[in-house]
Amino acid sequence: MSGIAYLNGQWMALEEAKVSVEDRGFQFADGVYEAIRTYGGRPFAVDRHLARLSRSLDGIELAWPVASEELAGLIEEAARRSPFSESFIYLQITRGVAPRRKEYPPGGAATLVVTVRKLEMPPAEICERGASIITVEDLRWGRCDLKTTQLLPNLLAANRAYRAGAFEAAFIGPGGDVRECCSANLFVVLGGEIRTPPRGPHILPGITRELVLELAPAVGLRAGEYPLSRAELGQAEEVFLTGTSLGILPVTRVDGLPVGKGRPGPIALQLAGQFEEQFVRRKDPQKS
Amino acid sequence: MSGIAYLNGQWMALEEAKVSVEDRGFQFADGVYEAIRTYGGRPFAVDRHLARLSRSLDGIELAWPVASEELAGLIEEAARRSPFSESFIYLQITRGVAPRRKEYPPGGAATLVVTVRKLEMPPAEICERGASIITVEDLRWGRCDLKTTQLLPNLLAANRAYRAGAFEAAFIGPGGDVRECCSANLFVVLGGEIRTPPRGPHILPGITRELVLELAPAVGLRAGEYPLSRAELGQAEEVFLTGTSLGILPVTRVDGLPVGKGRPGPIALQLAGQFEEQFVRRKDPQKS
Repeated sequence: MSGIAYLNGQWMALEEAKVSVEDRGFQFADGVYEAIRTYGGRPFAVDRHLARLSRSLDGIELAWPVASEELAGLIEEAARRSPFSESFIYLQITRGVAPRRKEYPPGGAATLVVTVRKLEMPPAEICERGASIITVEDLRWGRCDLKTTQLLPNLLAANRAYRAGAFEAAFIGPGGDVRECCSANLFVVLGGEIRTPPRGPHILPGITRELVLELAPAVGLRAGEYPLSRAELGQAEEVFLTGTSLGILPVTRVDGLPVGKGRPGPIALQLAGQFEEQFVRRKDPQKS
Repeated sequence: MSGIAYLNGQWMALEEAKVSVEDRGFQFADGVYEAIRTYGGRPFAVDRHLARLSRSLDGIELAWPVASEELAGLIEEAARRSPFSESFIYLQITRGVAPRRKEYPPGGAATLVVTVRKLEMPPAEICERGASIITVEDLRWGRCDLKTTQLLPNLLAANRAYRAGAFEAAFIGPGGDVRECCSANLFVVLGGEIRTPPRGPHILPGITRELVLELAPAVGLRAGEYPLSRAELGQAEEVFLTGTSLGILPVTRVDGLPVGKGRPGPIALQLAGQFEEQFVRRKDPQKS
């Protein structure tokens, strides 16, 4: 079984979940999404994902299709119904089905889809040896802080990375500022301090990013949000990525050049251990 | 009947045409489209639309789902099957159905959808009195020359225009340059010369735009591509929009202020007349 899906009120096999070709999600990318993983079969950090979803919905002027509490219940149900030991729970909300016009459909019923697939982790070799990334020009739109389905430039950049034998691509702004990767936030260690670019229209506020910023000072590490130049990325003692499926993933090569000694760095490894300790093994992880 | 659709080899009622929630068009906006209108029941300028589609497919690294000639045949068939006197033929190609990963699916079969709806024209009042437009910041991605389904910023801007009682919104770049509207190219008349912003990554090369640039000198009007500032837009003797469904539509108000005398201008009206004469009433319009 490839997975299960919930579509506008009904659970079904993933293969059976279909939307109209006039769904605005299909024709216009008129929608937002969240991707939640389970730890020990329980959905992780649901409150934080729903808070971000709320910001994304506001940002595209779309109402909640069901109450936030009901959606939280659906995510719990998705995890209960999942046939997999660990699941990737994907949630997409679009402005629904309507004749193709730019006007928001009057009183339009949104489309709500939840899919559940087996969680896929990065290949073990990459987790052990660290990932390689490339840098690319950021061609994305001006509201990447919203988690919308406008992901084509992310796909183009990610596939450029894959062709170059790399795991991810980091977007560089027109001023030379490093932003984030296609599906992950980016951190560096500079002068012993953990740094990530500040929140703004070109940065998705990742849940794992947020947890790392909260966790670091609690375990005696200095951490902060600072603009990051391409030059600083090249000088960093460590580089690592954060993301829901990735957790904390060390980067050991940027545009073909080694980061530090070319091995996963001690601060990233300490953080990954602490992250597991703090959030993953807790009894009630989604309240974190 | 709301319309008909062709989906991956079969014709059906529009309501029956459905794609998987794992179609990459739905989850990632990983696709391109074209919209063709008929004149006298025959699809207009098909060769030009297919040439643009070819550039869009190249730009997103997607192969033709069927040969170009076969697609031309499908468009002709769509017009023949249409129950409407004039049709809006919409064509969308996505990178197909695959488990949600950024990698292009290996050997993936694209999704090809054609829908046929009744052609909708702008309201008669707007055609007669001219349209009102607003200007908005351009938040779109850096490859608007490709006709992709990443249309969310266009929707947000268009709906801002509707709320302001306007018909369209013109995108202004960070340097103050006027680009185009949500679903139309923009022209001005300045010093008696017809001007439109030059082709580039922020301008969709519209078919009607191209035809106007070709037609103008043939009827003794000066026309050219020049960068256009917001200030020049305010000083223009005339402003008009071009688009497949719009044809040539005069603009009589920009951000609440009248253009020229606040009535459709003589050059726009002359062009619209010539356009009809030249392309619409010809026996073989799609060869134009």
